[in-house]
Amino acid sequence: MAPQSRVAPTMGGASHVIARDERYGEVTDDDVRHFVRCVGGDAAGVVVSTSATATNSKAADGAGDALDKYNVDWMGKYHGRSRVAVLPKTTKELSAIMSRCHARNLAVVPQGGNTGLVGGGVPAYDEVVVNLGRMNAIVSIDEDAGVSVVEAGVVLEELESAVRARGMTVPLDLGAKGKCQMGGCVSTNAGGLRLLRYGSLRGSVLGLEIVLANGEVLDLLRTLRKDNTGYDLKQLFIGAEGTLGIVTKIAILTPRAPTNVNVALFGLDSFASCVELLKLARGRLGEILSAFEFFDRESLDLVLEQLKGTRDPLAKPCPFYVVVETSGSVKSHDNAKLQAFLKIVKNKRVIVDGVVGKDEKHAFALWTLRERISVALKYAGAVYKYDISLPTARMYNLVTTLRARLAPQFGSGVKVLGYGHLGDGNLHLNISCAEYTDALERAIEPFVYEYTRDERGSVSAEHGLGIMKAEEIIYSKDAKAVELMGAMKRALDPRGILNPYKVLPAATRVAALIPMSRL
Amino acid sequence: MAPQSRVAPTMGGASHVIARDERYGEVTDDDVRHFVRCVGGDAAGVVVSTSATATNSKAADGAGDALDKYNVDWMGKYHGRSRVAVLPKTTKELSAIMSRCHARNLAVVPQGGNTGLVGGGVPAYDEVVVNLGRMNAIVSIDEDAGVSVVEAGVVLEELESAVRARGMTVPLDLGAKGKCQMGGCVSTNAGGLRLLRYGSLRGSVLGLEIVLANGEVLDLLRTLRKDNTGYDLKQLFIGAEGTLGIVTKIAILTPRAPTNVNVALFGLDSFASCVELLKLARGRLGEILSAFEFFDRESLDLVLEQLKGTRDPLAKPCPFYVVVETSGSVKSHDNAKLQAFLKIVKNKRVIVDGVVGKDEKHAFALWTLRERISVALKYAGAVYKYDISLPTARMYNLVTTLRARLAPQFGSGVKVLGYGHLGDGNLHLNISCAEYTDALERAIEPFVYEYTRDERGSVSAEHGLGIMKAEEIIYSKDAKAVELMGAMKRALDPRGILNPYKVLPAATRVAALIPMSRL
Repeated sequence: MAPQSRVAPTMGGASHVIARDERYGEVTDDDVRHFVRCVGGDAAGVVVSTSATATNSKAADGAGDALDKYNVDWMGKYHGRSRVAVLPKTTKELSAIMSRCHARNLAVVPQGGNTGLVGGGVPAYDEVVVNLGRMNAIVSIDEDAGVSVVEAGVVLEELESAVRARGMTVPLDLGAKGKCQMGGCVSTNAGGLRLLRYGSLRGSVLGLEIVLANGEVLDLLRTLRKDNTGYDLKQLFIGAEGTLGIVTKIAILTPRAPTNVNVALFGLDSFASCVELLKLARGRLGEILSAFEFFDRESLDLVLEQLKGTRDPLAKPCPFYVVVETSGSVKSHDNAKLQAFLKIVKNKRVIVDGVVGKDEKHAFALWTLRERISVALKYAGAVYKYDISLPTARMYNLVTTLRARLAPQFGSGVKVLGYGHLGDGNLHLNISCAEYTDALERAIEPFVYEYTRDERGSVSAEHGLGIMKAEEIIYSKDAKAVELMGAMKRALDPRGILNPYKVLPAATRVAALIPMSRL
Repeated sequence: MAPQSRVAPTMGGASHVIARDERYGEVTDDDVRHFVRCVGGDAAGVVVSTSATATNSKAADGAGDALDKYNVDWMGKYHGRSRVAVLPKTTKELSAIMSRCHARNLAVVPQGGNTGLVGGGVPAYDEVVVNLGRMNAIVSIDEDAGVSVVEAGVVLEELESAVRARGMTVPLDLGAKGKCQMGGCVSTNAGGLRLLRYGSLRGSVLGLEIVLANGEVLDLLRTLRKDNTGYDLKQLFIGAEGTLGIVTKIAILTPRAPTNVNVALFGLDSFASCVELLKLARGRLGEILSAFEFFDRESLDLVLEQLKGTRDPLAKPCPFYVVVETSGSVKSHDNAKLQAFLKIVKNKRVIVDGVVGKDEKHAFALWTLRERISVALKYAGAVYKYDISLPTARMYNLVTTLRARLAPQFGSGVKVLGYGHLGDGNLHLNISCAEYTDALERAIEPFVYEYTRDERGSVSAEHGLGIMKAEEIIYSKDAKAVELMGAMKRALDPRGILNPYKVLPAATRVAALIPMSRL
């Protein structure tokens, strides 16, 4: 018997009790032998749990198990109990693996670099882990066309290095770049730091190759910038978090890299000033504005406290900070634009103080203060993470409102931090504390979701829904939309074997499942 | 009886014999009275054919009929025989109209500005025309957020004027801007002249309101730049040409307008030089490059011949021309970048000659030479139009190959012209002739489609498939993809009443239809 139900008190925002759906099959030794044949007998292609009773006991929580790295997410919040991870090297191998899973009604969780924040890439129970890490070839880089084709397991930073060598850049950058894989980025529609400049992956991704739930290969891999022949099916798989198919190859625009990058950090005395600064940056920096990020003093304090080698960037503390990046092709022009911008924001007293990165190292240090907040939060203890889109001008109200809500009950041991992609209207709201407690969670949720709904915002701007927010979709999408998503799911994965328990609410999702007995 | 079958010898590329599907109902006087009630008795909201026998006779081809403007496309290629056009003023009215059509199994064609090139916006037979022209309110323009919300019937140029007044621009520009409607632009995923700069509508459109086939309203109207809560359903409706739902409202990014625009026109002696010029422009003009368009001498000759007031832009004729546009925020910087670019392309002898627009009027005159080729073609007689994505460097080979193929049989009376969006890999291939003939069409098709397939190109880069290329989708999409599109169609429009005969091949499409007798 697999575990019947699962409460995850350590999951920070995912305390829904969900039960393993007994309509799925359980992985047998026969299945494992079949998987080994699928990968041509390559021992590195199938990793089996070293805890003998892994599939049969609640007690086997896999300490020191060979599958730990596949079963547990990087934050240590989400713990699956899968018995086997497969690591195909080709689309054909994956296709054979999925055929088997489909025929046997085995649930599957597609996994990339395992850097997600919502538990979308690790098993909820005993799903077969399909890790794409060994499909990591860069297939082609076309400098003339500005298009690259990669396998899903290519790490973002590796692609960036490869295209940089030819004067190009990946139109996507995020903190996890050293580990996250391109397939995962596409499957989560990752946003990150360059969205302001290059737009979303929905425009940058030109083509995809997909392995469907039943093992069929869907070839949407084109390198054309324009193609209006029928419905753009690839869009369904971008951001579907592996619930509709498994991304195996990606064609993506890799535009010319900017030859000149400037970074400036500003201190401001109110959030309203941050918004005013954004307006001025859009107008004055125009086509060279490439990032506009903000964080509050509470976030900076945590970075300074947790991370060695960081230091206060300005003479006096300010309640708010903004990092502005410009990217252009002529250094003197960029510098002139930046200087003109600095002059105006000083004269208008929009900023309290500011500093421009004087060389690459200094610029990197300024960026680090913003980029490493997430790591500082991890070091500091437990953290409830929310990733929210809100109307830009009112975005920070949620932080102050939540502080006022939590302070009386929880005091100074609970810190509410706000930072994020201000230029995209995207707030990262983080509640840092010693440990996860039901009382604290109840004080945060569903309050945060209701607040966001009332502002017509999104309860997941860029992190996705995963297992953490599958039920919370209703705060951002109306019932008809969720119903239609269920129809898409049933059309593409009629047996519901792809990444179950995630993205869609149980009531929508489970209708797709066929009981084992009827197969 | 409605006409049983329909050969359209005048359709330039759509000579498939298609039959009216008798499973659809026919519009009755009762339906018309019901539609009048749906629009609150407003006489302007329902236009009925003035040819008494319009629905019952092949002879009634509608000369001088009140429905001509709805039944016939702007090129005069596609002639429908609809008996009624409805023009709702609100989503609620449209919803009531669709409920009726759904219940009665009446086929419907959604229609915008009727500027399409593939017959997607006019009836094939007697479909009810739903024209969005009276839903033409600009709902909101948010200058701070850079987002506008409009009803589907707003004309592109009107939105551009409205946002320009606030320092913003629409990230879309095309020849038909004075007539095409935003709903039509979204439904055809229009590309146009600014795609190079702002990317496709798949990134720029933030939200949609849709009326579904059964009259239900699907509210995906959000103004957030980022939202990863479930599948991005709105992408299905972008470019679906009205076959999955009717777009009624649109939220679209309206970025800050450039304050400084330069236009230059170059003459070149080979297509390879055009491609070389593009590479240099990408590198040297970088972030201010906003358009890169090419046309051949044959296209220019036609413009000079057909359009009053145009003149040869350079001292000597060249075989190829390129129009480059830059858009930036600081005039002196833009001018310096353009001058540096000019110097390099002269020194490297990439160009033969060139001219920079010395003022707005001159710049407009240069643009006109490229923008009005399509109008010149219309004046010149019959024209077979193809809109193709191909690998940029080899794009023009199709033009020379087709010329060599047609010349022996058809001589100089048939002209093959090539122009288009070189920066996007998008060729507009046009065959200009005195009249449409079967012999000429057979010499062009399926040759052009096969050639494109062999290059892994797209048989419709931006025009869509409509009725002209519904069967040709197979040249750009594999069988599995087309099958899944059919599944999407059945999920969203189970009775198949939305814009039948279009986009998908008959074999895929008709499975969705339910015979009247079984309703």
